[in-house]
Amino acid sequence: MSAEPPRYRRLADELSALIQAGALRPGDRLPSVRQTQASRGCSAATVFQAYHLLEARGLIRAAERSGYFVAPAAAPVATPAHEPQPVAVSEMVFQLLGTGGHEIHTPLGSAFPSPTLFPFARLRSAMIAGSRRLVPEELTQQLPGGHEGLRRQIALRYLRLGMSIAPDEIVLTDGALEGLNLSLQLLTRPGDAVLIESPCFYAALQALERLGLRAIEVPTQAASGADLDAMARLIERHAPAACWLMTSFQNPLGSLMPVEKKRALVALLERHGIPLIEDDVYAELQHHGLPPLPAKAYATQGGVLHAGSFAKTLAPGWRVGWVAAGRFAPALQRAKLSQSLSGSWPAQAAIAHYLEGGDYERHLRALRRALAAQQRTLRAAVLRHFPAGTRVTQPEGGYFLWVELPAAHDSLSLQRAALQEGISLAPGPLFCAQGRFLNCLRLNAGQPWTPTLAAAVARLGELIRSQTAASAPYPPAPMQAR
Amino acid sequence: MSAEPPRYRRLADELSALIQAGALRPGDRLPSVRQTQASRGCSAATVFQAYHLLEARGLIRAAERSGYFVAPAAAPVATPAHEPQPVAVSEMVFQLLGTGGHEIHTPLGSAFPSPTLFPFARLRSAMIAGSRRLVPEELTQQLPGGHEGLRRQIALRYLRLGMSIAPDEIVLTDGALEGLNLSLQLLTRPGDAVLIESPCFYAALQALERLGLRAIEVPTQAASGADLDAMARLIERHAPAACWLMTSFQNPLGSLMPVEKKRALVALLERHGIPLIEDDVYAELQHHGLPPLPAKAYATQGGVLHAGSFAKTLAPGWRVGWVAAGRFAPALQRAKLSQSLSGSWPAQAAIAHYLEGGDYERHLRALRRALAAQQRTLRAAVLRHFPAGTRVTQPEGGYFLWVELPAAHDSLSLQRAALQEGISLAPGPLFCAQGRFLNCLRLNAGQPWTPTLAAAVARLGELIRSQTAASAPYPPAPMQAR
Repeated sequence: MSAEPPRYRRLADELSALIQAGALRPGDRLPSVRQTQASRGCSAATVFQAYHLLEARGLIRAAERSGYFVAPAAAPVATPAHEPQPVAVSEMVFQLLGTGGHEIHTPLGSAFPSPTLFPFARLRSAMIAGSRRLVPEELTQQLPGGHEGLRRQIALRYLRLGMSIAPDEIVLTDGALEGLNLSLQLLTRPGDAVLIESPCFYAALQALERLGLRAIEVPTQAASGADLDAMARLIERHAPAACWLMTSFQNPLGSLMPVEKKRALVALLERHGIPLIEDDVYAELQHHGLPPLPAKAYATQGGVLHAGSFAKTLAPGWRVGWVAAGRFAPALQRAKLSQSLSGSWPAQAAIAHYLEGGDYERHLRALRRALAAQQRTLRAAVLRHFPAGTRVTQPEGGYFLWVELPAAHDSLSLQRAALQEGISLAPGPLFCAQGRFLNCLRLNAGQPWTPTLAAAVARLGELIRSQTAASAPYPPAPMQAR
Repeated sequence: MSAEPPRYRRLADELSALIQAGALRPGDRLPSVRQTQASRGCSAATVFQAYHLLEARGLIRAAERSGYFVAPAAAPVATPAHEPQPVAVSEMVFQLLGTGGHEIHTPLGSAFPSPTLFPFARLRSAMIAGSRRLVPEELTQQLPGGHEGLRRQIALRYLRLGMSIAPDEIVLTDGALEGLNLSLQLLTRPGDAVLIESPCFYAALQALERLGLRAIEVPTQAASGADLDAMARLIERHAPAACWLMTSFQNPLGSLMPVEKKRALVALLERHGIPLIEDDVYAELQHHGLPPLPAKAYATQGGVLHAGSFAKTLAPGWRVGWVAAGRFAPALQRAKLSQSLSGSWPAQAAIAHYLEGGDYERHLRALRRALAAQQRTLRAAVLRHFPAGTRVTQPEGGYFLWVELPAAHDSLSLQRAALQEGISLAPGPLFCAQGRFLNCLRLNAGQPWTPTLAAAVARLGELIRSQTAASAPYPPAPMQAR
């Protein structure tokens, strides 16, 4: 990080992290201003400023004459903080992604569709055929960009969408995730500001943290994605080095940017010379009709790095993804070479062979139908079993539902209780550098409907209600927030 | 980079890079001090200092009353520069690794043994069997550290060496290269100094450059590896954040550190609390006897990150490597998860299955015999065909020969001429942040001996002689270096 944030903000961030990680739980009393002043060796003003900031974030509350307490279910702040935030979430993300050692029978927190939805027998045949056809020399020459046949197949898939992408523009990566990380590293220097969505995919937050970047969170709606007016103001104010977002079936909201908005997004970024890292791994999982075009389709200056993957559509665990990197393709090729030389050749060759065989479209049609049906069933069950006032998104693609519980609920407590019973879920604070969205959760609709799953959803509903009833006594809210 | 190097050094580095990249060729006249002063807007003293530094590096020479010229075959400086060097070699490395579009029939510059030496038919069977046994759920749960069966097999291989490494300490990575990169990123912040060998594996130079680190080059000998006395002095002076080196069959020198020296290396680094990134991908390719123990075997504080790979011993192109990361294992697991989630599951499962089958040792014995025989033949041919005064290493493992031509020769010109004829080689300046080792080259002894290969070695000898004869007229060396 080139510029250190002010002292009070660092203190506030540290306490936020403790609250988010569950080290400080709702109702816990914070150390007094005087204690903190002594233990940190800072001024009372610094502590007051830090506590004010935490109050503004909805994470703590002041109780008259009894000090400061962690808020029971910190209400999500309506709009994200607009100052670029240093990111310190990785530890929390890893904790929240874990299962705490519990056996999970109902993976509603998973990031992947059920493996039963993928054609592994056919992929195995493709792997055998693909590896028979391999010229051994290919294995020890590093072709820039990776397996040529696979890059050609990916270029053909772009062509079906009416997009001309040369195979040379495509860099194969270990899943989209490596491509996104390498792209971000290529475009930024430590201390740079980067536009991201709020809520956003947690891996983006981790990437920003690892590279010492600052997050500028753009408010994002389930209906149509990132707010471009807010983005325009944030660009003027913070001169970001890059923008990383998902334009189709965003994770976690499922939002789909309308075509005109994608065009406007690209125009806005091009006007300011800001490269766009477009994470588009769910684009081919539309529930009906044709896959949406990515924002890249409207790019005129080669400044969009479009990342895709077979991990969510065909072969989870094989780690085959790509970036169509526009004018950054040569630099990204080299970044990939330096980082890990190439992807795993057998997996690349097998997927190339499978795509040539022409079965992919049929598989995708079946997968889309399954995901659409599962989403309908899961959504209906959530609305039936969760408390009144619960809101659930209704995405047109992908396999995530974003559930907003009434404001007083706490998805972190719910996660802890659910894990005890073998049910995972993704709590809202996973998706935000500031630990907001505490009353929200992401559920995976990629699992076939079964009695176990039905029972798990009903059980989640019970847990939510019982947690509300059993809430620890809590100091009365002050008349004024000080 | 946190601290900018002084102006004169930046100018010198820029000119070094131009010379190394071949933009300035031997015999070319450098711009005069007055011209440079004007074009750069700096003082005459700065230009003089930069030119003196380039002279000291052996890259240019002053000719009385006619200015400065690029040295014809910059003699390798006996000891590396001991100031930490910002690294700016990536562009040169990529150029030198490329083939300039030429079809290569004799890949003496390759980093891999010939693919004909690997058991691909058996690996294909292992892949089929391994993927049949896969539990689909494994594909969408990210097990920390990667495929458990493979980590267990790797732990068993350590046990054969008498080393107790728990499977949980092992993080599977996409080849050793990704593991090395992630380790370095984990242990450093931009601007930190890192101990590396000189000459060293070029990927280490690229990694330092990408992360904005400074190289402290430790003189390294073909006989026994890095000079520990020099290292101790460099540690006192520069407080490096990490050390990255190869203790067995080092690339490019082939040096093998004796056991006592490995022990002393670890003791020295532990005394100063400096983590060691031990790149050990050639350890199992000893030509005779048992594989050498790594330095990690002598570690007492968990501070050695030991990186291995199957890319050089079993399955090139599959990108299956690992790091046994000591006390850094949990952090490295997380770095891997954030960077690319996991390695490619089919390749990991196949290699686990292959290792369980028990064929690996037999394959390794055959591979070692082949590499030892090929090295003898290639070495004899080089000594026969290359000019008198050529020196060639005689490593006890691996498959690289380091060839030192008489001082006046230029491996960059040789590379250019050889590529025209379909022969690749790795010129010395690839292996150094300062472009030294111009009269050296690395040859790959991993190719079975064939008439084509024999003819290529003879042809290289002819090219070397003809280049000496045809050297451009060159200003007489000054009596004094100014």
